[in-house]
Amino acid sequence: MSYLPTPQTTPTRYRERARYDRATVHGILDEALICHVGYLNAGRPVVLPTTHARRGETLYLHGSTGSGPMLAASSDGLPVCVTVTLVDGLVLARAALRHSLQYRSVVVLGTARLVQDRREKLRALDALLDHIASGRSADSRPPNSRELAATAVLAVDLVEVSAKVRVGGPVDDQDDIALPHWAGVVPLTLAAAAPEPADDLNPAVPLPPYLEPYRRP
Amino acid sequence: MSYLPTPQTTPTRYRERARYDRATVHGILDEALICHVGYLNAGRPVVLPTTHARRGETLYLHGSTGSGPMLAASSDGLPVCVTVTLVDGLVLARAALRHSLQYRSVVVLGTARLVQDRREKLRALDALLDHIASGRSADSRPPNSRELAATAVLAVDLVEVSAKVRVGGPVDDQDDIALPHWAGVVPLTLAAAAPEPADDLNPAVPLPPYLEPYRRP
Repeated sequence: MSYLPTPQTTPTRYRERARYDRATVHGILDEALICHVGYLNAGRPVVLPTTHARRGETLYLHGSTGSGPMLAASSDGLPVCVTVTLVDGLVLARAALRHSLQYRSVVVLGTARLVQDRREKLRALDALLDHIASGRSADSRPPNSRELAATAVLAVDLVEVSAKVRVGGPVDDQDDIALPHWAGVVPLTLAAAAPEPADDLNPAVPLPPYLEPYRRP
Repeated sequence: MSYLPTPQTTPTRYRERARYDRATVHGILDEALICHVGYLNAGRPVVLPTTHARRGETLYLHGSTGSGPMLAASSDGLPVCVTVTLVDGLVLARAALRHSLQYRSVVVLGTARLVQDRREKLRALDALLDHIASGRSADSRPPNSRELAATAVLAVDLVEVSAKVRVGGPVDDQDDIALPHWAGVVPLTLAAAAPEPADDLNPAVPLPPYLEPYRRP
């Protein structure tokens, strides 16, 4: 496997680095709860959010059958761009145009195929569930044949992949340092509140260990 | 202005509703810190994250000059799809395929134009800054001509827009209710930690009111 750079679309900024190493890419894909999938619909770009999960060097995407992209992917494969972005903080500089975000993003370019093998599909659906809450696939009622037929899973190989990571604080020109504007970073995280049981949950069912507390990997 | 439905790409699910009302769309766009922009690059879909800000019925996108999409938008306009997604919670059902996320998303289809009028560009850059931290544009050093020339802003009119909102808890089949799996919702929010001053910040500069505490609108 080789991770290739995506087409250069934005110039590299200070403290913003393009990365192609596997560990960085995997870490971002595994932590992000959702992705945004871009594809062509009647010649126009469409971007939709969905959930994803990585198994080795394959990225699986959750979809529904009967929808445009799924039908396209079932024949020749569907050209897609899958992008995930984690926002880690606000970067406030003295100068307006030096403001930035701390973020980690991955862009995957490829051709999505519809997963048709039953075993691969079941494993992918387990992975999609475990991606949301690790261990959940073993602690839920497995799909039956009717449900399986009504659900589509797409697969994209991790071949043309890049990550971009922006860390650190603001970078102001020397002339701006003494200006009376606060500068620094506001760290941001996706925080989980206490789980709320369903109205119809039997009170004897305990909260599973993977939800106390809930954390992204 | 009329908000038109986007092409139907996924079937409507239970407790998931497509919405086209202005207040819902504006609220989601204003709260989301980033968007994902899809466009065509050499005939292939590309999706990149960037910051955005709404002014009335126009959505502004931050970019850099010299990059592919910006050049395209400067001539004839660039067909884009701008999607923002807020994740509000995990929805854990007893059945594997009834799991879901609570989310709010907006999809904007349109043609992006490069903002070339100097006054509109300055107003848009203020809006992009105030979108990140309300009041910040008045509390930072304004762009100079050199910086302005090195920064690109795209504008997309909010015409073909839709929102999708998924609220509520899990919806299991009656036969699954008695299964021994926990069911409910794990609420998620973007949480801000205490602001961290830059290393070179004069300690006499106080934390501005709009950062204590930092909250999305």
